[in-house]
Amino acid sequence: MISRVMSAELAEHAGQRVTIAGWVHRRRHLKSVSFLVVRDRTGLAQAVTGPNPPVGDLLAQDLPAQDLPAQDLPAEESVVAVTGTVTASPQAPGGYELVAPEVEVLAEPRTAPPFDLYRPIVGATLPTVLDHAPVALRHPLLRAPLEISAASVAGFRETLDRLGFTEIHTPKIVASATESGANVFGIDYFGRPAYLAQSPQFYKQAMTGVFERVYEVGPVFRAEPHDTVRHLAQYTSLDAELGFIEDHRDVMTVLREVVAGMLESVRRRAAPALDLLGVEPPVVPAEIPAVHFTEAQRLTSSGEPDLAPAQERWLGEWARREHGSEFLFVTGYPMSKRPFYTHPDPARPGHSNGFDLLFRGMELVTGGQRLHRYEDYVRALADRGEGTEAYEGYLQAFRYGMPPHGGFALGLERWTARLTGAANVRQSTAFPRDLHRLSP
Amino acid sequence: MISRVMSAELAEHAGQRVTIAGWVHRRRHLKSVSFLVVRDRTGLAQAVTGPNPPVGDLLAQDLPAQDLPAQDLPAEESVVAVTGTVTASPQAPGGYELVAPEVEVLAEPRTAPPFDLYRPIVGATLPTVLDHAPVALRHPLLRAPLEISAASVAGFRETLDRLGFTEIHTPKIVASATESGANVFGIDYFGRPAYLAQSPQFYKQAMTGVFERVYEVGPVFRAEPHDTVRHLAQYTSLDAELGFIEDHRDVMTVLREVVAGMLESVRRRAAPALDLLGVEPPVVPAEIPAVHFTEAQRLTSSGEPDLAPAQERWLGEWARREHGSEFLFVTGYPMSKRPFYTHPDPARPGHSNGFDLLFRGMELVTGGQRLHRYEDYVRALADRGEGTEAYEGYLQAFRYGMPPHGGFALGLERWTARLTGAANVRQSTAFPRDLHRLSP
Repeated sequence: MISRVMSAELAEHAGQRVTIAGWVHRRRHLKSVSFLVVRDRTGLAQAVTGPNPPVGDLLAQDLPAQDLPAQDLPAEESVVAVTGTVTASPQAPGGYELVAPEVEVLAEPRTAPPFDLYRPIVGATLPTVLDHAPVALRHPLLRAPLEISAASVAGFRETLDRLGFTEIHTPKIVASATESGANVFGIDYFGRPAYLAQSPQFYKQAMTGVFERVYEVGPVFRAEPHDTVRHLAQYTSLDAELGFIEDHRDVMTVLREVVAGMLESVRRRAAPALDLLGVEPPVVPAEIPAVHFTEAQRLTSSGEPDLAPAQERWLGEWARREHGSEFLFVTGYPMSKRPFYTHPDPARPGHSNGFDLLFRGMELVTGGQRLHRYEDYVRALADRGEGTEAYEGYLQAFRYGMPPHGGFALGLERWTARLTGAANVRQSTAFPRDLHRLSP
Repeated sequence: MISRVMSAELAEHAGQRVTIAGWVHRRRHLKSVSFLVVRDRTGLAQAVTGPNPPVGDLLAQDLPAQDLPAQDLPAEESVVAVTGTVTASPQAPGGYELVAPEVEVLAEPRTAPPFDLYRPIVGATLPTVLDHAPVALRHPLLRAPLEISAASVAGFRETLDRLGFTEIHTPKIVASATESGANVFGIDYFGRPAYLAQSPQFYKQAMTGVFERVYEVGPVFRAEPHDTVRHLAQYTSLDAELGFIEDHRDVMTVLREVVAGMLESVRRRAAPALDLLGVEPPVVPAEIPAVHFTEAQRLTSSGEPDLAPAQERWLGEWARREHGSEFLFVTGYPMSKRPFYTHPDPARPGHSNGFDLLFRGMELVTGGQRLHRYEDYVRALADRGEGTEAYEGYLQAFRYGMPPHGGFALGLERWTARLTGAANVRQSTAFPRDLHRLSP
């Protein structure tokens, strides 16, 4: 390994001669001294050449690029190893800087980045960012959502591991569409037609018969014909399913633990990213408020059998105002609006034991209790005018005894976007796939 | 949640009246008593009806099925909740059983399993097992490899998290083939041709420019035309990539930590599965022995530019004999046998800084140092008669300064199969995909 200390560890090496390594984040020349700011995975460190101490906070001073004469310091995004003596400097990032530096260039960039990575704000449009993701994501503000995303997933798994769940990996190539016949990508599977899985729904249910409690973190695929700020053709689905429940409320209890665990993990693992973005993660109430769909309809004066985005937003405001909660469950969605595997509410004909979790007025999680008896599946499919042929592999589990069960699916990109306040879900994934975008 | 205690917790409730819930694993009738063995996610528990204590170890007695008169106990694989008084019984699993039981049936099976799940061995062929995976995987012997698999992945992530790696999620739908033009699944992407990713190779390299150290656990897809015991059309790839290395040996050092961490996690998290399968995880030497490819050729008297499976097996035996190691690195593979992104060995023309890790004589991991300079990629592609057009998205990262880096990919199913001694990689995944199999 290249022998080095990380920029965040400089203080521990005061007075020593050490090597840091990373990318040239910024170079800057003053009358008598020059600064080289190096970015590594822990943050920024500066090296200073010349006899004088730094005359100000270099990072806070965001001079126009033309003020920076190109001298003999390596260009921005050069990969460098810088050896110098660690010296206290109140103006340097972390309070220490390297003096009397020797700079070794490990790799030179061929091209300047499409926008300046050192500026505190991102001076490029979203399409430019996405077209140049491999370099654009080096900007601390663009990298931060991905750190929050990684910390969120770690918290998802940590919580479910603690609750006795087992991680599974299920097929992404399937013989028939899972969620609906539409919006599915076709694939040539050794000369046979097959599809990309729209969810691990059938498999996680089947594995509930094996492990009782399972989760999967994996890609799902939707051939979304809509070009919106909240749809992707591939996204990361955080799926969980558990058996031996009374009804959907047990699923909601687990989901509340999961969301709290994800936020706790983000606070613990991604604090610098939260600080950088100015994000304060919300507090999850001990019990997340819940309204029944019919009540949500009444509150939003809606007569429709589903909630439109504007109504979800209104409900998000209402939950904050009335319950002091950023989260709101909507329960009892009409059976007609839920997939065929949804368990009906025994007490309210036409309504389901299915729920959505709204986060700041946007649907974040869909879940519910599922049917668990074979004959109920046959009837549910018949009621929708479908036979069981296409679902035989799926229905197999239910022939052999399945416990009452339910689960949920949370879209990682939507979660991260909502948490960080990003307007577009494409800002919370490295290489989005959509109607128009297949590269990089 | 259905109020219950787990079978493994019975001892903590001695003398109390409690409810367990799970599947009827086996029922058995003797002259004066009947036994109902219930399986839940923590193991087995038995309930006994009638006045007499059990007369022997029920589980050890594997009487033919016809010896079991079908009486009024629910059939095998019924989902039940059994309430009874926890009573010490030396012959019962865990030393306690439920007496004076009341049995509630939560779901009845419609069909008997294709083979008896309670027998200590699996009385079915692999195709029968795979065709009936949702029920077959309930057999403790068939479930155990999946528990070991989950524990292995947890150890992979745990080790890399500790070493400062960041988890990423990358596109599985790509514009051009990553590893080679062959063995790739085509997909209709909104009317455009696209492919399923054969590896996250290009993306994990690009993200090394962002986070320095990254990993991904995700599906990869290979349109393998070969019907062998070690190939799957979809498998779970454990990928890692790190920057600021000297050469491939730094990657090997990290890989050694990862393999040790995976095995430690398996011992800690999946001890019952190991016991059940009679598996003793191997010890990883502080330094895994390594032989150069030319030396491996000499040892196996091979003149070929690659190692055949028989030679790998021979080397596995040799490593055990000579070094007391189940693991062996083979380094310095010929450049002609490695992908174009492989870094050459500066000291040995024609050889690479690429390596394989053999585990018990079978290739388990491929890795190495990669090229990191844009012009080296252009030259490497030209040397293979290829232009850069198809790789522009990939090569973008290298235009902007990339550190010396390398990484590796480990196939989860192969790992689990090798660890558990399974003859076929299909025994270490729930729902394998291959040339012939697309369901369940």
